[in-house]
Amino acid sequence: VQRQHESEIKALLDDLHPADIAFILESLPKTERQAVWQLVGTEHDADVLLEVDDWVRESLIEAMDRQDLVAATETLDADELADLAPDLPPDVVAEVQKGLTEDERAQLIEAMGYPEDSVGAIMDFDMVRVREDTTLKAVLRYLRRMRELPDHTDQIFVVDRQGRLQGTLSLSRLLVGDLKSKVQDVLSPDYLSLSPLDSDADAARAFERYDLVSAPVVDDQGRLVGRVTISEVVDVIREDSEEQALSRAGMQEEDIFAPVGMALRNRAPWLFLNLCTAATAAFVASQFEDTVSHIVVLAFLMSIVAGIGGNSGNQTMTMIIRALAMGRITGHNVWQLVKREMTITVLVGLCGSVGAALFAWLISRSIPVALVMMAAMVCNMLVGTTIGVLVPMLRARFGKDPAMGSSVLLTFATDSLGFFIFLGLATLFLL
Amino acid sequence: VQRQHESEIKALLDDLHPADIAFILESLPKTERQAVWQLVGTEHDADVLLEVDDWVRESLIEAMDRQDLVAATETLDADELADLAPDLPPDVVAEVQKGLTEDERAQLIEAMGYPEDSVGAIMDFDMVRVREDTTLKAVLRYLRRMRELPDHTDQIFVVDRQGRLQGTLSLSRLLVGDLKSKVQDVLSPDYLSLSPLDSDADAARAFERYDLVSAPVVDDQGRLVGRVTISEVVDVIREDSEEQALSRAGMQEEDIFAPVGMALRNRAPWLFLNLCTAATAAFVASQFEDTVSHIVVLAFLMSIVAGIGGNSGNQTMTMIIRALAMGRITGHNVWQLVKREMTITVLVGLCGSVGAALFAWLISRSIPVALVMMAAMVCNMLVGTTIGVLVPMLRARFGKDPAMGSSVLLTFATDSLGFFIFLGLATLFLL
Repeated sequence: VQRQHESEIKALLDDLHPADIAFILESLPKTERQAVWQLVGTEHDADVLLEVDDWVRESLIEAMDRQDLVAATETLDADELADLAPDLPPDVVAEVQKGLTEDERAQLIEAMGYPEDSVGAIMDFDMVRVREDTTLKAVLRYLRRMRELPDHTDQIFVVDRQGRLQGTLSLSRLLVGDLKSKVQDVLSPDYLSLSPLDSDADAARAFERYDLVSAPVVDDQGRLVGRVTISEVVDVIREDSEEQALSRAGMQEEDIFAPVGMALRNRAPWLFLNLCTAATAAFVASQFEDTVSHIVVLAFLMSIVAGIGGNSGNQTMTMIIRALAMGRITGHNVWQLVKREMTITVLVGLCGSVGAALFAWLISRSIPVALVMMAAMVCNMLVGTTIGVLVPMLRARFGKDPAMGSSVLLTFATDSLGFFIFLGLATLFLL
Repeated sequence: VQRQHESEIKALLDDLHPADIAFILESLPKTERQAVWQLVGTEHDADVLLEVDDWVRESLIEAMDRQDLVAATETLDADELADLAPDLPPDVVAEVQKGLTEDERAQLIEAMGYPEDSVGAIMDFDMVRVREDTTLKAVLRYLRRMRELPDHTDQIFVVDRQGRLQGTLSLSRLLVGDLKSKVQDVLSPDYLSLSPLDSDADAARAFERYDLVSAPVVDDQGRLVGRVTISEVVDVIREDSEEQALSRAGMQEEDIFAPVGMALRNRAPWLFLNLCTAATAAFVASQFEDTVSHIVVLAFLMSIVAGIGGNSGNQTMTMIIRALAMGRITGHNVWQLVKREMTITVLVGLCGSVGAALFAWLISRSIPVALVMMAAMVCNMLVGTTIGVLVPMLRARFGKDPAMGSSVLLTFATDSLGFFIFLGLATLFLL
């Protein structure tokens, strides 16, 4: 029965798109995943390996023997092989390399040499190139001989004898153009080209802004070395946004079926860091033990001051990080921006602190406590705004990712200083 | 001099891509933005209006007189006009409508009728359609007569006499195919089609998964009504991720140069909501005034318990929201997932609480306080995990966005219950 079941699953899998098979494998716990993987037809192996997320790929490769791996990977293009190579056993890579042409081997080495977040790491080598002195008719004949064009070919690249890019020719122009005209007369010389060392995020922004489907990649001598297509760019955009969401919670990518030990290593450092900052803030507050023991109600109000400062700073910080990411902040407008954020904070703070003061009065029945609450809250919100503006801008200034770690620093400042300001004011005016 | 300056800027602007002009306008404060906008050549007006963000568009339209608006918008396609229409004065829309053909007017009304996040709202009508019984040669002749193909035409659509979609024919296949063969013999019948009422996020996931450049949109009778292109999809992906980042900080899209009053309306509700939850938590804690006045050090430790519970719950919640968004959570695996998250929390909690207990001992020199700290911290982290799993899953179950508002509920629970558990345990065991 089990066997019959298996053959049904196998038949189902064979009809699916490799991306769908990848999705199913990603949604299964490890043992079931490896069992289903055995049922996937070998002709799909390579495509599925390329589609799945990194953490799933490892477990799939683990379940394959050397021979299967070689069989699956020897059909790959150089750029695809470069994507998989870090996860493959070195002897498999060596074996598969032997089957490559010299050109492909050079491409493989080139693709593997670029840093992870660069254009070089996402480019492929599947380009159609033509010379500028051919006629459209000859180009069409040439394409017809290829029998199949590379995926996402919306334009072909026009190069000179030295392989330097001269311009691009879109398929639509090729289709509607006069057959007798020469490529050089219809090419668009006004194209966007990337360098292999550009960041993939910059490339993604260019694709978004100019609505591109593909873009040529040229080296510093202007020679065409590869192209980037929208399908890689969409992955970059999606991954960047997921990475941001996860890093805000102090995590890296994690499989919902990843072993518990891996999850611990992923999550514990962040919690430990937060424990340290919270303990430091608590230590700051404990210096005012005397004050608190005289007016116990301060103990319950101080966390409100800290929390609202953090929330308000977080709004400013989110705005600033976003504006930085879009290149909206210049030396010219930065002061205007700071002034604007400060004004907003003071205005929101004044309104909000009236509410907070009212609450403080309700539980303490003391007008001085309510006034201290009010003052401390506005001050701490200004602390939050200052950190929210300064930290991302300084990080960006020194070439670091403005988002990373900013939120810990913010919480640290608004907690510690919030306690300090509130209890300090209370010590000065209420004792 | 001012005038000469202006003419230089004008010349510079004329050379730019409309998307670049849009970017510049978005980076300027309102008055300067409107001044520069006057210098943009009228032939770019329509394209720039389509490119800029909503909040900038309003200020640009404000700065144009009726005649300019009509001149700019009468060149637009129906789907583009539908995008702008909500921001245009009604009489301008009425005027421009008069210039449309009957077909275009029907398209405009159709496009304006679909809800904001649907495929209908992002589709366009620029499609090339052919009949299945024509030859490739005839198709090529037909395309050549069009002189220009719509942007992002990677495939043309094959329809029958009633306009029902029969399949798609990619440009590459058209280019390499035998000229004498009929469309019906080379079309791919295995295409992905969307319905105008599908959500744009689902469409985006399909584009990502199958690496599409365009996709046909068909109505419930199978008739081709429009198409979606990757350039709209990239915008959807980017906007969704920005919306998420902003909504996590309790904001909506906000211009860094938006008037302060607008920013207040945008940000104040979130801060007020947080003030209410923080006040409630403080009120819960104040019920233990007696306990705290006996052992003041509890006042400084309680915010650590609350904070770590929130951070730990946030990690779980981020994982769950992400898994839900990717469709990874099924009835089948949900219990396994809950068990896994609980195990991770208990393990991280045990390690972390040893550190927290050590700190508690250091500032209180009391072993019972340290033990209460340990127990409360693990318990509150489990509260965080429970909320982190339950809230997004319940929201998703009832068809709501799992991310929205979840973080407020989480903080509310981990603050209030954190105080309650810690001070409650202290009352039971330390007094």
